Amino acid sequence: MRHYVVRNFPRAESSLIDRLGACGVATVHEAQGRYGLMKPYMRPIYPGAKMAGSAVTVLCHEGDNIMIHAAIETLKPGDVLVVTTKADCTDGMFGDLLAASTRAHGGLGLIIDAGIRDVYDLTEMKFPVWAKAVSAAGTVKESPGSVNVPIVAAGQVVRAGDIVLADDDGVCIVKRENAEEVAKLAEARIKKEAVSREELMAGKLGVEKFRGKLAELGVKYVDELPGDWMS
Amino acid sequence: MRHYVVRNFPRAESSLIDRLGACGVATVHEAQGRYGLMKPYMRPIYPGAKMAGSAVTVLCHEGDNIMIHAAIETLKPGDVLVVTTKADCTDGMFGDLLAASTRAHGGLGLIIDAGIRDVYDLTEMKFPVWAKAVSAAGTVKESPGSVNVPIVAAGQVVRAGDIVLADDDGVCIVKRENAEEVAKLAEARIKKEAVSREELMAGKLGVEKFRGKLAELGVKYVDELPGDWMS
Amino acid sequence: MRHYVVRNFPRAESSLIDRLGACGVATVHEAQGRYGLMKPYMRPIYPGAKMAGSAVTVLCHEGDNIMIHAAIETLKPGDVLVVTTKADCTDGMFGDLLAASTRAHGGLGLIIDAGIRDVYDLTEMKFPVWAKAVSAAGTVKESPGSVNVPIVAAGQVVRAGDIVLADDDGVCIVKRENAEEVAKLAEARIKKEAVSREELMAGKLGVEKFRGKLAELGVKYVDELPGDWMS
Amino acid sequence: MRHYVVRNFPRAESSLIDRLGACGVATVHEAQGRYGLMKPYMRPIYPGAKMAGSAVTVLCHEGDNIMIHAAIETLKPGDVLVVTTKADCTDGMFGDLLAASTRAHGGLGLIIDAGIRDVYDLTEMKFPVWAKAVSAAGTVKESPGSVNVPIVAAGQVVRAGDIVLADDDGVCIVKRENAEEVAKLAEARIKKEAVSREELMAGKLGVEKFRGKLAELGVKYVDELPGDWMS
Amino acid sequence: MRHYVVRNFPRAESSLIDRLGACGVATVHEAQGRYGLMKPYMRPIYPGAKMAGSAVTVLCHEGDNIMIHAAIETLKPGDVLVVTTKADCTDGMFGDLLAASTRAHGGLGLIIDAGIRDVYDLTEMKFPVWAKAVSAAGTVKESPGSVNVPIVAAGQVVRAGDIVLADDDGVCIVKRENAEEVAKLAEARIKKEAVSREELMAGKLGVEKFRGKLAELGVKYVDELPGDWMS
Amino acid sequence: MRHYVVRNFPRAESSLIDRLGACGVATVHEAQGRYGLMKPYMRPIYPGAKMAGSAVTVLCHEGDNIMIHAAIETLKPGDVLVVTTKADCTDGMFGDLLAASTRAHGGLGLIIDAGIRDVYDLTEMKFPVWAKAVSAAGTVKESPGSVNVPIVAAGQVVRAGDIVLADDDGVCIVKRENAEEVAKLAEARIKKEAVSREELMAGKLGVEKFRGKLAELGVKYVDELPGDWMS
Repeated sequence: MRHYVVRNFPRAESSLIDRLGACGVATVHEAQGRYGLMKPYMRPIYPGAKMAGSAVTVLCHEGDNIMIHAAIETLKPGDVLVVTTKADCTDGMFGDLLAASTRAHGGLGLIIDAGIRDVYDLTEMKFPVWAKAVSAAGTVKESPGSVNVPIVAAGQVVRAGDIVLADDDGVCIVKRENAEEVAKLAEARIKKEAVSREELMAGKLGVEKFRGKLAELGVKYVDELPGDWMS
Repeated sequence: MRHYVVRNFPRAESSLIDRLGACGVATVHEAQGRYGLMKPYMRPIYPGAKMAGSAVTVLCHEGDNIMIHAAIETLKPGDVLVVTTKADCTDGMFGDLLAASTRAHGGLGLIIDAGIRDVYDLTEMKFPVWAKAVSAAGTVKESPGSVNVPIVAAGQVVRAGDIVLADDDGVCIVKRENAEEVAKLAEARIKKEAVSREELMAGKLGVEKFRGKLAELGVKYVDELPGDWMS
Repeated sequence: MRHYVVRNFPRAESSLIDRLGACGVATVHEAQGRYGLMKPYMRPIYPGAKMAGSAVTVLCHEGDNIMIHAAIETLKPGDVLVVTTKADCTDGMFGDLLAASTRAHGGLGLIIDAGIRDVYDLTEMKFPVWAKAVSAAGTVKESPGSVNVPIVAAGQVVRAGDIVLADDDGVCIVKRENAEEVAKLAEARIKKEAVSREELMAGKLGVEKFRGKLAELGVKYVDELPGDWMS
Repeated sequence: MRHYVVRNFPRAESSLIDRLGACGVATVHEAQGRYGLMKPYMRPIYPGAKMAGSAVTVLCHEGDNIMIHAAIETLKPGDVLVVTTKADCTDGMFGDLLAASTRAHGGLGLIIDAGIRDVYDLTEMKFPVWAKAVSAAGTVKESPGSVNVPIVAAGQVVRAGDIVLADDDGVCIVKRENAEEVAKLAEARIKKEAVSREELMAGKLGVEKFRGKLAELGVKYVDELPGDWMS
Repeated sequence: MRHYVVRNFPRAESSLIDRLGACGVATVHEAQGRYGLMKPYMRPIYPGAKMAGSAVTVLCHEGDNIMIHAAIETLKPGDVLVVTTKADCTDGMFGDLLAASTRAHGGLGLIIDAGIRDVYDLTEMKFPVWAKAVSAAGTVKESPGSVNVPIVAAGQVVRAGDIVLADDDGVCIVKRENAEEVAKLAEARIKKEAVSREELMAGKLGVEKFRGKLAELGVKYVDELPGDWMS
Repeated sequence: MRHYVVRNFPRAESSLIDRLGACGVATVHEAQGRYGLMKPYMRPIYPGAKMAGSAVTVLCHEGDNIMIHAAIETLKPGDVLVVTTKADCTDGMFGDLLAASTRAHGGLGLIIDAGIRDVYDLTEMKFPVWAKAVSAAGTVKESPGSVNVPIVAAGQVVRAGDIVLADDDGVCIVKRENAEEVAKLAEARIKKEAVSREELMAGKLGVEKFRGKLAELGVKYVDELPGDWMS
């Protein structure tokens, strides 16, 4: 009904974004109470892709990428494009030309709840993309949308300036207001996990902590499979 | 009702096929007016796979590969097997033995709207395959089918001798009759895109071309997110 | 209703497991009459992953990995964790800490009919995993399950001590009681296939064996596409 | 590249279409050698829907129904709209207004490899529709397509004038040229099935016919489950 | 990280909700510029279900319905429960007991981006539900969530007090602030459609309005299928 | 590898089966500790279908129904056919003729982890079927399978003589050995639920029981949405 391109919005400090990026998606998602994870169908186009930045959000009509062009003009260095469509779409709405343009304006990469194309070239460029599908199906430029309004992409609300983290485990959104708090919690988790890792590698059993819980849940230890098991 | 193995059919000239192959799937698909693209579930078994050839078409009963054996006899150098099944199937209907045989008869690779197996060996052989699924499930040889009749595979009609292009972006079919015309259009596109790429890398904004269109579509530029946005 | 952790169960001899592993999933599946193959949605997290071992089975509530901790205590060198959930689940129920612990207790890798996380680290560790999904979504430790009772994972029954084979083509289960017999049949197949491969590479046509069958099925050879084809 | 609205094409005689319609989708599909069945995701919007007519084919851009408007002008009494899109689409591209218009021009119903809306009204009107999805998502009218050119819908080639059969079991296409032959085969099947039905209802066992085949396939009859079963 | 049950929030006037409900999902979605439609996998459990109310939002851990119990306490007459889970889930998280309780507190029905059970009883009660799946899989009560915080369900943001419309075509959300404006636009559309319907039923062709557009798009009218068609 | 038709196996007493059937799928599944539920893709072909009986199990090659014919001979009154295939399959492997034959031999209905056809006739006959898909795609009779060996169907192990319960909520398997115990637990649940239902209908809040748990989980009650919510 109303379509806007919003030019300005606040971003988190880059040092904060870097701290979150260093923690990784799985740890940050856990640290913020299991919020903000996109659906697992969002996959990187090459293994080892990793990215952390501020969201520039794009709402497109399915199969129409005119608003991505409009969004690139609003990019600042360290930003990440986050694109969604009004209805489900697997068309390849972004390719190597748009990637070149995104990079020229400081953009780090792309999250798209739709399809991607020119995968070979994007991989050569090491331009990181998380997408729902790969498809050579091209797009038209006929229907309006918005830039930098709050959107829903792959099950998550994303607002311009929210922090986007992406790696091999998926994509996680951290609200700008929570970034400092979440970074601290995530870093604490990393430290704790480092200790656990050493202990576990040395043979300590994780189950030691849960013996009481297992008993309380009625789990019984037996030497042989009893006749009355059920599954 | 009637099952045929058709021995002869016209093919495009190999120089023409090579020109199309050099343009890539996304560009050719765009150049021929967005026709001919197979469904995006057709994925290469290893990244960087690329192939262009003439179609030898195979219609199989699901889970039965007897007709692929029959099809190999009709291969000429530069041909590509395009296999479909009567009903949906993910069984691994083709493996390294059939690949060895295909290659011995000049076949370049395989497009299969079903499953593939021996993926490790096929990757080692650099035998390119685009498939719907990977599955070790083997096949029987009990039901009839046809070779080199027109088929539908992954949503596209393919006739023997049509040109098959495949790369990381998917699989596209070009009708033999249109090959010359499509090649010219695709090559023109490639040239135009090279210019665009340089301009975009230099920072030019793609949106400059669409300012009028955006205004016409009612998209408004604002400095801050207005209260009445909707998404 | 009843939840057990079963401590002991018989395993096959490691030499037998190795023989099966050397044959590969596709050949073993074929050799045992096309039994035991998990659904094709079970995919390795990196190409070239390969594993053969004895199953330690784990039944979890969806999104709850407390029983995986319990299972690690029952591992012996050469074992493989096989995890399933009571209802469908894509949460990342296993990550690099559990992998470190599994390895410290002799476990070779993981088969999980649910999600996996820390994919980058697991790949670096060369810890092989076959899973249904990749997801950073973490787990709770609140609901009971069982260890080393018979389970169903990705469509197959797995009992503790059954032999688990996994490679790029998928995952196959061989019953411990049948291992010797299946290994012999699979090895015979490998030998036969080596001969076929040489013949096929030398240009021999596989269809020669099926000419009678094709005629019996009513498949006709023609020089040109007849007007009455149908597909 | 080229978009046409084709005004004229030959249709089968209505008596022939009626004979095929009376046989039903499952029988006709079987009678023509298991050709022509659309993918099983095509479902009727209400139980008991049934339809037989001549195809008016429509190729649309995804999410754009301008060509359906163009197609209605080419309808003759007894025709059926068969709509497909260039790329996958679940938008509701057809609703009660288009149904009213279709009916005013003699159209019987709709087959659409995309979404449908106004399902309540269409059900009230007893306007039969087979679709891939139900969705209120509306459409634009901005991109070209074609009418009465050969299309692929739900995995089948459909040409204008081909016979479309649809009931609770799905949608089947019969080529106009084959209609007479297929009708005879289907009617013969119906007669044969009527005899079988009576025999089976009287308790005759279908397996009597297959005892030899079962023996040949190595299936053994036993009184109790043997220890060496495998599944 | 923080889990709240919010007791109070503003609701739209019931007369306004009724006006929107009378227009239906497809019309309202269109009227508000194609915003607010949930994914098409949300289907009613019986045909003809229809509902309009104010959202009480519920965020649950997957497979855990403790927060639905908490939400019922916040219901007012005319409210609708809208339930989502942190990760994908098809468990039957709501059944006839919760429906009885919902109704006792004035709730009209349920929208749930997860599974539903007791479908037979709910249908007998005429308790309307739109769900992603039907499953008898029950739930635990072990993990925290929130009530009446903004959630994402089936791809749409829903805030407590937003207006929820649901019928056979799906589920649409209207922001409380926009309800008046959207109702007017939708009612205008209904009037316009009534005129169109009469004209179309009288045989007027919709394509008359688009002849110029079709010409501009390069669509050509021909009497016979030309040799150079492509699809 | 080995294919058997097993003629005899023990069945539960019909009074016990009836008691379980009266409790319904959701209650029985809950009563036996959430075991035995088939995947939610198993849906009845008409609303209100309901069935309880002893399993006659059938393992088929995909798209081949010869073993269903063999299974019908082993039916006794009150039995239910439970059919699965070696690899995924949506073909319509069972239709009205087989239903007539099944009924003539005392069979009550069908559970099939594959496709079904003749849905209209089966509905008219009130022959209850739970299936994965509806498809007119027919079958061949060329590959061996087994009858009354343990199988996996839709994620559950089923042994001949196990009790099969099915209604609008799905399909649940109860092991014959557990039937008596499960029936008692389910009946106790029914009684308890009747009390709960009355209380809830009278306005009692289910959350009263969980106030302690919610506090322990850190869920806070607030009057207005706080600024720091997260979802």
